[in-house]
Amino acid sequence: MAEKTSKFKYRPPALEWLKGYSGGVFTEDFLAAVIVTVLLVPQALAYAMLAGLPAQVGIYASILPLVIYAFVGSSRHLSVGPTAVISLMTAVALAALPEEQRVFGAAILAVMSGVMLVIFGLMRAGFIMNFVSRPVVSAYVTGAAILIVFSQLRHVLGITGGGSTALELAKNVWENLGKTNAVALIVGIGVITFLRLTRTYLAYGLYKLGVKRKPARLIARMGPFVAVVVTSLAAYFMDLNGVYGLRIVGDIPSGLPRLSVPVADMAFYRDLMAAAALIGLVGFVDSMSTAQTLAARSRTRISPNREMRALGYSNLAAGISGGYPINGSMSRSAVNYSAGAKTPVAGLLTAAFMCVAALFLTPFLRYLPLATLAGLIIFACFNLLDFKHLWRTFKYSRADGITAYLTFVAVLVFGVEFAVLVGVILSMALHIRSTLRPHAVLVGRFPGTEHYRNVDRFDVETNDFVKTLRIDESLYFANARFLEDRIAAVLQESPKLTDLILMCPAVNHIDASALNSLMSINKRLDSAGVKMHLSELHSVVKDRLQRSTFFEKLTGEVFFSQHEAMTALEPEPDWSRYSDHVDMH
Amino acid sequence: MAEKTSKFKYRPPALEWLKGYSGGVFTEDFLAAVIVTVLLVPQALAYAMLAGLPAQVGIYASILPLVIYAFVGSSRHLSVGPTAVISLMTAVALAALPEEQRVFGAAILAVMSGVMLVIFGLMRAGFIMNFVSRPVVSAYVTGAAILIVFSQLRHVLGITGGGSTALELAKNVWENLGKTNAVALIVGIGVITFLRLTRTYLAYGLYKLGVKRKPARLIARMGPFVAVVVTSLAAYFMDLNGVYGLRIVGDIPSGLPRLSVPVADMAFYRDLMAAAALIGLVGFVDSMSTAQTLAARSRTRISPNREMRALGYSNLAAGISGGYPINGSMSRSAVNYSAGAKTPVAGLLTAAFMCVAALFLTPFLRYLPLATLAGLIIFACFNLLDFKHLWRTFKYSRADGITAYLTFVAVLVFGVEFAVLVGVILSMALHIRSTLRPHAVLVGRFPGTEHYRNVDRFDVETNDFVKTLRIDESLYFANARFLEDRIAAVLQESPKLTDLILMCPAVNHIDASALNSLMSINKRLDSAGVKMHLSELHSVVKDRLQRSTFFEKLTGEVFFSQHEAMTALEPEPDWSRYSDHVDMH
Repeated sequence: MAEKTSKFKYRPPALEWLKGYSGGVFTEDFLAAVIVTVLLVPQALAYAMLAGLPAQVGIYASILPLVIYAFVGSSRHLSVGPTAVISLMTAVALAALPEEQRVFGAAILAVMSGVMLVIFGLMRAGFIMNFVSRPVVSAYVTGAAILIVFSQLRHVLGITGGGSTALELAKNVWENLGKTNAVALIVGIGVITFLRLTRTYLAYGLYKLGVKRKPARLIARMGPFVAVVVTSLAAYFMDLNGVYGLRIVGDIPSGLPRLSVPVADMAFYRDLMAAAALIGLVGFVDSMSTAQTLAARSRTRISPNREMRALGYSNLAAGISGGYPINGSMSRSAVNYSAGAKTPVAGLLTAAFMCVAALFLTPFLRYLPLATLAGLIIFACFNLLDFKHLWRTFKYSRADGITAYLTFVAVLVFGVEFAVLVGVILSMALHIRSTLRPHAVLVGRFPGTEHYRNVDRFDVETNDFVKTLRIDESLYFANARFLEDRIAAVLQESPKLTDLILMCPAVNHIDASALNSLMSINKRLDSAGVKMHLSELHSVVKDRLQRSTFFEKLTGEVFFSQHEAMTALEPEPDWSRYSDHVDMH
Repeated sequence: MAEKTSKFKYRPPALEWLKGYSGGVFTEDFLAAVIVTVLLVPQALAYAMLAGLPAQVGIYASILPLVIYAFVGSSRHLSVGPTAVISLMTAVALAALPEEQRVFGAAILAVMSGVMLVIFGLMRAGFIMNFVSRPVVSAYVTGAAILIVFSQLRHVLGITGGGSTALELAKNVWENLGKTNAVALIVGIGVITFLRLTRTYLAYGLYKLGVKRKPARLIARMGPFVAVVVTSLAAYFMDLNGVYGLRIVGDIPSGLPRLSVPVADMAFYRDLMAAAALIGLVGFVDSMSTAQTLAARSRTRISPNREMRALGYSNLAAGISGGYPINGSMSRSAVNYSAGAKTPVAGLLTAAFMCVAALFLTPFLRYLPLATLAGLIIFACFNLLDFKHLWRTFKYSRADGITAYLTFVAVLVFGVEFAVLVGVILSMALHIRSTLRPHAVLVGRFPGTEHYRNVDRFDVETNDFVKTLRIDESLYFANARFLEDRIAAVLQESPKLTDLILMCPAVNHIDASALNSLMSINKRLDSAGVKMHLSELHSVVKDRLQRSTFFEKLTGEVFFSQHEAMTALEPEPDWSRYSDHVDMH
């Protein structure tokens, strides 16, 4: 694997885009950064709440990680920081800790998942993302979105309590339904309705009013910011907290985050280890799929290993600057891209604007209702639901559909971490199951060509003396014995057989167990008076077989092409047509 | 899978061989049974000792299981009963129990592994044996043989103590070396030397004296019986136990086993569950490889699922008749076959002779020295060492060699159970690793044929406008993204490309993730102005793809054969030769 991945030589990414950086590009990056910041401020607060952490932790997680990513990341448009799924996972991981230790625990989580990502990235283990299949990702995201909606219902209803699975959350909501705070409900539903309307009609309306399509869409994205400002003002002037008991964010300390390495007992690290590993993995997979989508649009390529390290360093930065685990955000990256960001300078500027927010904006956010934040989160989650894709997956392949379905159920019943493992293990198991019986079919010549195809599917030329079995898979321990069985069956069905050709166009690999089976097959065919030949053997496989005694023992020959084999072994070109006749004698 | 295995229709195996059973066949079965019994008596005592159980447990395990297997087994020659590896595993599983509970625990182990085998057999899970690759089996058997030798050294030295890993056993021997009993040492070494000499020279000597080759070999196999008789007599007449402290078997209750179902607390079952499952799995894999070897010699076939159930019922029989876990014995089955056994009646007769032994022979076995039994075990283990095969495996394939080596080390360091899991997981992981990068090569036409081969290996005809990438593997989630990368690289290298043909002779399966990747590839190629075509697509895969929108979106065509595709797309047959020239314009 090393020789392939080393293609991506290390060049400090910053050097690439600094070359030829100009005032025009800066203007574009600046504008994109303004728009992303306007989106990021409410998200940072909302996701911190989702993670069960104070608001400032969300803001801190949106400063230093962005600076670091700008210098080490391999994507030009990825916007890192707090995200919904990772915040939910953080909340679950910290649930067992006493409240006063959670901020500290969150920093430890970020540091640990950062260190793990860096180490795995250096070990070039970026390929592990390939084990998380697309159906698992879709099912997982959809399931997590529902779980997050359930977890935010309490804020919309203005009630307390919690839980970590969908069932627990639903039960808590059900039992406390009587305590619903009407004002919270009005704010929450109002925010969701407002966002829905702006997203659907504002862009269209602006476009009709003569605003260009792209700016119209970006303005429509500012809905969350408007919702935050309007509901905060309402809460302040109407004293919704004091009079109606509407829960608000409360005091947020202003100022920049302090740098400090979180140090704790070994036991503390150990308890959070598994959660940190899963947060790292899920964050990486999620970031990569966003980064790759953006890279495809701009025709650039992303190196999984470099990206893994970059995400690791960014998480490390989040951990030592009072933040919590971060990853690439799909929504903000997409906005960053559409707003015209050209280089990671946009990320640096976003970080600078967040510093301004941390220094001067916090007093204004004091009155922000939690119901507003819950409304923002719930609305964002609606966009993550992707039942249509799940249904299409199920229609295409039962196995993939079942994997997706079970992953989805696992998210709701057991929570996020466990579900990823369920999905990965299931898809692996189903894949292995599909390779257990090597696909092997008898083939014959397609009339008038040198092309050989499945005798059961096509009207091809065959004869009773020389048969060809095309093996469509690499042979390894788990499927080698089935090949023995398959050939025993061919032998049983073909009393006149004198030569059996194994056509190997798809055999990339024969392991020691399979070699053993081939030796046995050769021996058994020999004692039945049938010669075993090989055709279209890959050169690599042939070289490998030469290290064993296989070719010495082989009763037949090795042919370059299947047609060559047939021409050499068949008594007459059209023998098959007379076989019935010959039989009569 | 169901439709394939159902080929083995259930016919009570007994009916097959009872048909046409004659006096001649009976004589042959009778003779084989006598010879097997003479081998089995000392083995039953020795393996019971190896399992840390009283001698009669070994005898009981050699009666009812043989009867049951005769009626339900699918092999005509397999001789079930106590075996070395399973006895060792039993000893390890029972080590934690107080001594007085071990006989009972052994029965529970047999019942549980029996029930599991029956259930798995009914679920047609016989295929799980395929996951234990040949290198793992060789390494495992060799490692276990060494471990057993270590565990028996104490009896040859006449010392006490024990351990469950090679290290613990070696340490115990080392620390107690000073307490060596000279007589035990003489008996032990004497027995091993005697067996070595008879095996090597007796058959040859008898053959020279005019005895036919086959009977000569069988007589030479009687060495263990002679050793037992001679050393027992010596111990009795010279009172080696009383005078020199030589440890002997001691009182063995005579009589037939009583039938009783062992019942215990739930916790007791739970503690032994994992050990029982591994004993069942290892016993099954071991039995199957013996049964298949014998079946190949006599041109019959073994059904893994039926065999799994048969072994399960036999273990159940062992458990309810005072025995302990059993499986098919390689040495006794081979003797049974060479001694001329024709039907399972030989097994029934062996069981009958063992009843006679249990009733009348036990008083004579009282004085049998433990050192004799240890000598028998050690000698048997020498024959299991197979370093040559391990070395050959390593030479053939590094991956297989490493798996074998690590399994071997795991047996010695961690014990038998854990090592099997290590081996299975390792071989699986290495196999998956080999499929992570789909083998895909550019191919060109082999001059004068319709055959297409690797451009890097052969001097084939190519051109700069139409290229063909042959995909040699099924596409699934773990390798789909690498294909995207591979095609991106081809695109980068080929500025003049107008058509890319994906030749799919080896693609048996495209899962939902891979479909997704193919869609992206099609889109990316399209935006680069390159059409994507497919050739030699399997019909099954084509049918499946029709359930998606793939063919609607495909920019190019689907060709039946690669040659057809090239003929249709290539502007002139020999274009490639002029491509430089064309380029000049």
